[in-house]
Amino acid sequence: MKLTILGCYSATPRINTHPTSQVLEIRNHIFLIDCGEGTQVQLRKNKVKFNRIKHIFISHLHGDHYFGLVGLISTFRLLTREADLHIYGPKGLKEVITLQMKLSDSWTNYKLIFHELTSKSSELIFEDNKVEVHTIPLDHRIYTNGYLFKEKEGDRKLDVNAAEDAKIDVAYYRKLKQGFDVINEADELVKNEDVTLAGKTPKSYAFCSDTAYSETIVPIIKGVDILYHESTFLEKLAHLAQKTKHSTAKEAANIAKQAKAKTLILGHFSTRYDDTNDFKIEANEIFDNVELAQEGKVFEI
Amino acid sequence: MKLTILGCYSATPRINTHPTSQVLEIRNHIFLIDCGEGTQVQLRKNKVKFNRIKHIFISHLHGDHYFGLVGLISTFRLLTREADLHIYGPKGLKEVITLQMKLSDSWTNYKLIFHELTSKSSELIFEDNKVEVHTIPLDHRIYTNGYLFKEKEGDRKLDVNAAEDAKIDVAYYRKLKQGFDVINEADELVKNEDVTLAGKTPKSYAFCSDTAYSETIVPIIKGVDILYHESTFLEKLAHLAQKTKHSTAKEAANIAKQAKAKTLILGHFSTRYDDTNDFKIEANEIFDNVELAQEGKVFEI
Repeated sequence: MKLTILGCYSATPRINTHPTSQVLEIRNHIFLIDCGEGTQVQLRKNKVKFNRIKHIFISHLHGDHYFGLVGLISTFRLLTREADLHIYGPKGLKEVITLQMKLSDSWTNYKLIFHELTSKSSELIFEDNKVEVHTIPLDHRIYTNGYLFKEKEGDRKLDVNAAEDAKIDVAYYRKLKQGFDVINEADELVKNEDVTLAGKTPKSYAFCSDTAYSETIVPIIKGVDILYHESTFLEKLAHLAQKTKHSTAKEAANIAKQAKAKTLILGHFSTRYDDTNDFKIEANEIFDNVELAQEGKVFEI
Repeated sequence: MKLTILGCYSATPRINTHPTSQVLEIRNHIFLIDCGEGTQVQLRKNKVKFNRIKHIFISHLHGDHYFGLVGLISTFRLLTREADLHIYGPKGLKEVITLQMKLSDSWTNYKLIFHELTSKSSELIFEDNKVEVHTIPLDHRIYTNGYLFKEKEGDRKLDVNAAEDAKIDVAYYRKLKQGFDVINEADELVKNEDVTLAGKTPKSYAFCSDTAYSETIVPIIKGVDILYHESTFLEKLAHLAQKTKHSTAKEAANIAKQAKAKTLILGHFSTRYDDTNDFKIEANEIFDNVELAQEGKVFEI
């Protein structure tokens, strides 16, 4: 799994600070998460292959999280995209995108599939044989979801020597990788764990922006490998965080601690702060493994 | 008058090529013309004072001319703007902006006044005592207007020595500047032209993007000081220009020649061209005074 930060600041785009957008590469998928103004240029800067993006997840309909979406959809059309594009986000997103396409008399020549979200409980919204995506209902000024991306348990790894010693026909190797016990050439049952090893440990990533401090998300993200949690403010401006339904670095660290996350990435910084290192210092008082989002930064998970 | 090019490329924003947007400073107004994605960052790069923009003119509802508008409106709100903002553009613009504000539950705390255009004839859409703005109906795939910005005749310049010699009371000097004849201390009529000189010659600027070759605009822009005319393509791709209702550099030069414009600025280049100088070479075969739009370039008129 590989996470690339395209933008990690709140509110308004500036020359060197871009609004929220991230690319998650997970088991051959390239997922785009949020799409603030200028995201398509950030994708180019970070050399992300446009065509490989087939799923876009929008957290909520504040401009700094989706004003770049309609432009990206238009650019896909100009690049003569043919592949379907799935867009997950709050109800209303389809209306605003289709209105803009109608006004420009420019329909996409690829299929645009909206998955509009309205539930206030966590839902499984995407699943294939390798990956699951669940919503994480957040507590913000308008309807907002974070997203939990989970790799599925992969195949077990075959211990070829052990399998040969156990006289198992190669025709059964696929069954073994899938975790089944099999019958050997001597008609004896061979236990799966005797001839296979554990596969790769599935990893998970939770994206939580924007939200007030909310312990209700803890059970959903329990044990996550990487938690991205917004920290728009430092504790000194906790009153502003409360008023605008954002979080402080300390609050983000508290969530990471309760969820037993392995790593916490902080982001969605207010542009009023010159030095984001203060966010790490504040969070480290509660939680050890803290990273700072930074534009162009890549986290290998 | 001062024109700053913020973006002058067609279609999709890229790392170093931005979609259409320009700032025109004219008699103390700062007018923003078109507002492609990323315009607010281009405004910052070019150090334009956001607060001084009170009028925005949108040519048409293709994304490369207005996808940056909703973000700019949101940023004005975050910067606690109080001044009214007037937006001129095709019908539909109000609906799409207000829908996005409704979905984000973020109304502006300043007055947003839409002037939606539907006429297919040139109209006077803005006027004060210094400036007039007229629409220039263009021939594009969807309803599109260019804009003609004209300074009004300024005050005449007082010839103080002549006025003193003619024994005119200083109380009448203002009347003289406004062009009136006056009575002197000896009760004689003094002709205005005997004691004043011509004021500054009023200048004009015509913005024409996007459009097919259309001679119907010539009478509207006749004698304009600066004509910005789109040239998305060179003549070699004239068939593409025709198909997409854009112009070639040669066609733009033809319009400039017929309109007896003093200077032609070419822009709205397709990003397929690496060297925009070829546009100048092509246009120069028809018209001498050709300039190339370039991001960050300032034209003093």
